[in-house]
Amino acid sequence: MELAMKVVVTGGSGFIGSYVVMEALKAGARVVVVDTVEPPADVRAAGAVEWQESDCADVEKMREVFQGAGVVCHFAAMTNPATTWQNPAEEFNATIGLSARIFDLCGSCGVRKVVYPSSGGTVYGASSTPFTEDQLPVPANPHGIAKLATEHFLAFYARLHAYQYDIYRIGNPYGPRQRGLGRQGVVAVWMTQILRSKPVVVYGDESVLRDYIYVEDAAALMAHSLHDVTSSGVFNVGSGRGTSIRELFELVRRIVDLPVHGEFMHSRAFDNRSIVLNPDKLHVLRPSVRLRSLEEGLGVTWAWYRDNLMQA
Amino acid sequence: MELAMKVVVTGGSGFIGSYVVMEALKAGARVVVVDTVEPPADVRAAGAVEWQESDCADVEKMREVFQGAGVVCHFAAMTNPATTWQNPAEEFNATIGLSARIFDLCGSCGVRKVVYPSSGGTVYGASSTPFTEDQLPVPANPHGIAKLATEHFLAFYARLHAYQYDIYRIGNPYGPRQRGLGRQGVVAVWMTQILRSKPVVVYGDESVLRDYIYVEDAAALMAHSLHDVTSSGVFNVGSGRGTSIRELFELVRRIVDLPVHGEFMHSRAFDNRSIVLNPDKLHVLRPSVRLRSLEEGLGVTWAWYRDNLMQA
Repeated sequence: MELAMKVVVTGGSGFIGSYVVMEALKAGARVVVVDTVEPPADVRAAGAVEWQESDCADVEKMREVFQGAGVVCHFAAMTNPATTWQNPAEEFNATIGLSARIFDLCGSCGVRKVVYPSSGGTVYGASSTPFTEDQLPVPANPHGIAKLATEHFLAFYARLHAYQYDIYRIGNPYGPRQRGLGRQGVVAVWMTQILRSKPVVVYGDESVLRDYIYVEDAAALMAHSLHDVTSSGVFNVGSGRGTSIRELFELVRRIVDLPVHGEFMHSRAFDNRSIVLNPDKLHVLRPSVRLRSLEEGLGVTWAWYRDNLMQA
Repeated sequence: MELAMKVVVTGGSGFIGSYVVMEALKAGARVVVVDTVEPPADVRAAGAVEWQESDCADVEKMREVFQGAGVVCHFAAMTNPATTWQNPAEEFNATIGLSARIFDLCGSCGVRKVVYPSSGGTVYGASSTPFTEDQLPVPANPHGIAKLATEHFLAFYARLHAYQYDIYRIGNPYGPRQRGLGRQGVVAVWMTQILRSKPVVVYGDESVLRDYIYVEDAAALMAHSLHDVTSSGVFNVGSGRGTSIRELFELVRRIVDLPVHGEFMHSRAFDNRSIVLNPDKLHVLRPSVRLRSLEEGLGVTWAWYRDNLMQA
């Protein structure tokens, strides 16, 4: 990476965004976080991060922030598969309209590369796994449709403005700092419930596979974008291993040092049956990144939730 | 087709929609047109068409109209590639939000099949032609991104509500009743200009190929949806033949019996370089449909514009 390249991370105080910020600091970048929330304390402790307290819908502010940036990582997101699948129009306004404006703006600000996190779990749809990046996507739900359309907008504006881009189709990331209060992020939700002595709800059966990846490993893979600003790509970010929700439940039960009560339910309508990502394309570019095993990642994550329940 | 099946055509007074109405009448359907404009006189002359004077954004009205329909052809459209490519958010609200609501509604009204016209010219992008339906789309512009996302919404709601659907990726349709006053529909625009003794603007050169199809032939192919309501498909609607804009200009010049003055310009930013559709998948299902040659189609079209300039 060029010395002290400016890297902007929208949503840089969020779950995945904050790990991207850590990677950028590690790479020696000048990092600017655009978020309505202050970056987490351990991120601020890791290096000098400039925080622009702003919604990225503030176009004039963004124009200012993006000036001179080598890379813009657009990780701010307002919606998720669970909450918005019944309101496509809202999903579209929130995800696409805003992102398209950001991508357009990046062109007029001279940004060299734009990075966007897509959804490995919803863009491909219910065809056979493991998925490769050149597979015909049949998005599973409105969230996946919106994510895929946003990918297409990024590719369009990149062509129009002649900049580079990376799209990361991330599997099921988990790890410290994931919010455990919503309906997404099963590891965070479960660990939060366990610490509150509440039952854990397990949706789906042995046949429902997911591709879990420890968030720090995901960010280390995506750091590819910081080291190569001269090419574009679409990449799966996953382990390549399918884990059933029951298997995950047994792993968590074994790891935590508290009693766990599981409630077993059928799959939800917005859940795909199985998602396993073929991660080879990105792994080849980042051979030094070693992925933690699920056991190891869950252990670190549990230690964090146990110590930080109040912030979770 | 079942005897007197009810077929609803939104946008049934429009260019392509009105030919779909003619096909439905020919097949013996009870046809309901939803449009803010009355169906053209020759459509009304062709059979008993019920006209519901309504915008299809009127959800309560649509709920009423869709009841008991076997097939809903959603041909109402508010945007086109030329006018909206600089305003993605508007494109999305107009094209996708509304269509998603319509597709959802069709499920709750017991509709058996939904038909949607997509854009063969913009969903595939600038990869190599001729395009086949299973090719990875890289939409060329926001219009194509919106059309593709709308396709995905239709597939999603069809799965959710267990109805069938057909998506038609139409090339460059031309023929009588196409509006010649906008920036789209090169044949209509040229013929209108010629009849007004104005110069004809020719964008692009020999290398820019398009797949022109006479609108009545396109509708005859799409009548597949009326005869088979038990399967779903995505189909190209084209001739399989690429014609350069210069070639088209020479053909039109030869056919019209008036002087033609051409002004030759570079391609526009929202134009793809070349679009030729592989039409085999649909042709196999409609072997009796004979496509008019471009010469023949242009001749019929010219005769119509000459006789109907005032309505054009």
